[in-house]
Amino acid sequence: MKYKVAILGSTGAVGEELLNLLEQRQFPLADIRLLSSTRSAGIQIEFKGRQILVEEAVPSSFAGVDIVFSSASGSVSRQLIPYAIEAGAVSIDNTSCFRMQEDVPLVVPEVNAGRIPEHKGIIANPNCNAIIIAVVLAPLHKAFGIKHTFIASYQAASGAGKRAMEELKQETAAHLAGQEFKRTVFPYPYAFNCFIHNTKLNGNGYVEEELKVINELKKIMEDNSLKINIHCVRIPTLRAHGEALNIEFNGAVSPEMAYEVLARAPGVKIEADWEHERFCTPLDASGKDPVLVGRIRKDISKPNSLDIWMAGDQLRKGAALNAIQIAEHLLNSG
Amino acid sequence: MKYKVAILGSTGAVGEELLNLLEQRQFPLADIRLLSSTRSAGIQIEFKGRQILVEEAVPSSFAGVDIVFSSASGSVSRQLIPYAIEAGAVSIDNTSCFRMQEDVPLVVPEVNAGRIPEHKGIIANPNCNAIIIAVVLAPLHKAFGIKHTFIASYQAASGAGKRAMEELKQETAAHLAGQEFKRTVFPYPYAFNCFIHNTKLNGNGYVEEELKVINELKKIMEDNSLKINIHCVRIPTLRAHGEALNIEFNGAVSPEMAYEVLARAPGVKIEADWEHERFCTPLDASGKDPVLVGRIRKDISKPNSLDIWMAGDQLRKGAALNAIQIAEHLLNSG
Repeated sequence: MKYKVAILGSTGAVGEELLNLLEQRQFPLADIRLLSSTRSAGIQIEFKGRQILVEEAVPSSFAGVDIVFSSASGSVSRQLIPYAIEAGAVSIDNTSCFRMQEDVPLVVPEVNAGRIPEHKGIIANPNCNAIIIAVVLAPLHKAFGIKHTFIASYQAASGAGKRAMEELKQETAAHLAGQEFKRTVFPYPYAFNCFIHNTKLNGNGYVEEELKVINELKKIMEDNSLKINIHCVRIPTLRAHGEALNIEFNGAVSPEMAYEVLARAPGVKIEADWEHERFCTPLDASGKDPVLVGRIRKDISKPNSLDIWMAGDQLRKGAALNAIQIAEHLLNSG
Repeated sequence: MKYKVAILGSTGAVGEELLNLLEQRQFPLADIRLLSSTRSAGIQIEFKGRQILVEEAVPSSFAGVDIVFSSASGSVSRQLIPYAIEAGAVSIDNTSCFRMQEDVPLVVPEVNAGRIPEHKGIIANPNCNAIIIAVVLAPLHKAFGIKHTFIASYQAASGAGKRAMEELKQETAAHLAGQEFKRTVFPYPYAFNCFIHNTKLNGNGYVEEELKVINELKKIMEDNSLKINIHCVRIPTLRAHGEALNIEFNGAVSPEMAYEVLARAPGVKIEADWEHERFCTPLDASGKDPVLVGRIRKDISKPNSLDIWMAGDQLRKGAALNAIQIAEHLLNSG
């Protein structure tokens, strides 16, 4: 059985990663259709050794398509996905557009793959932080019961797209050369700097990114009583996020107990060399599938609490890989 | 009244900043003596328009000296400061060597200047994180009573010295040019990366930097019952630290109440433009005296808690400025 796939937003950073992974994972493709905005339509993209024309995404683009990977923007998804559903396709949507809609499964396969068959034409791919954190948090919650989680994020440029990654490199080169630089993507100087995540401020003082992570984690982990707080900061890294987690459990949990659970958790790899004092970094996670877990230590300031350092590739598990894993589950489940 | 000052470690990043500030603040200098290791001795440093020879620091270097600013290394301080005391000088020591010694005041003037006259020849300048955090935490603790604090640091290269700052720039340039780079200062790739603070791991899983911040904050704020936890991460910035604070108070405290206290707190400047969604960054704090406070929001995950973002110049308030402020208090008080 082979499937016809369309990629909406195929020229973006996530689109590129989707194409890499479809090839690497030998996804059973009958055909592939690359879609984009008017601006990028007409260019050619190489895939499995042949050039494919990028077409403008229009309502009729989905005829005969089985699976749509959508990673353009929320407004594009809102406008076009109804046509994909009408054409009989299932859309795996990487935007925030449908994530919190009650009849849309929000899925991290390692955590709640069981929700996939409930879809009504759309399965939502969560926020990048939510995905990589869920892979670590869910098995710990299941094993020990989590009372409270505080997260400080160390987020890369890639979440803001390919142009953002380019801008960080260009601004950094200009800074090193002592030259002026005119930014177009970010509102803050980014070279050798860090800043609050640049999504809109909500009335309660949280930025949208933070509320997405909190709300999506509750939905993915299927526990609305979870107490989660996150402080999102963008640092000058390119494509993988670091996360400092402080987790308070319902009872005593040692670092050894947490390492043991996480060593068995799907999608997680422990990279903590205590002897040589070497722990995973965002650069270690870049281009890799698993979410990396580094130092775990007992919080000496309060009972039943651990500090956990982790890193995950924003474009891979944080976006494209998770979407493809959802598709693979979809196909396997019939 | 004018004073003879010696700078131990005068060719380092903190030494340079000390010289800048002594000039800018018109410190009442009778004479200045620049001291360093054998390696740097013999070079000339410009100060107030004249060239000063850097001399090798030896036991006899302190004859006639009133104040020693020491920022070479812990072992240099341990070896030479006894001779400075013998010569009748007061040493303001920027290393961790004497900080936790009971008869040595550990001072952030905005918080505990009253301890300065208790010195017995040494006043310790705290860890850079401890200084900039104390300036914010102490007035909040005094006003509202703090129950627990969790901090995630976003630390710059400068804490590891001038060579570390150069290495970050060189490694970043090499990375952008696609060239190999051989690091000599840091154990981790640093260009477009972040990593656990590179001080030694303690048996309890904390790195020394983290334990310094926790223990020093308790001593500076004169409250051993304080519950503080910090997760220290080095990010690729040059000379200012960012800190994400999650503070649980004994009772309800609104962001407005915290802003009001901090607006009146010495050494603090609020840089939070809510209308334009613009908050302070490490780059904003670089080269500035005050510690900057940006977004303050109510933590929606637990009662009586606030999230505070702040940034402070590691070389200035985090080191040289705090030392000079201690000296200024010392002179004013006697």
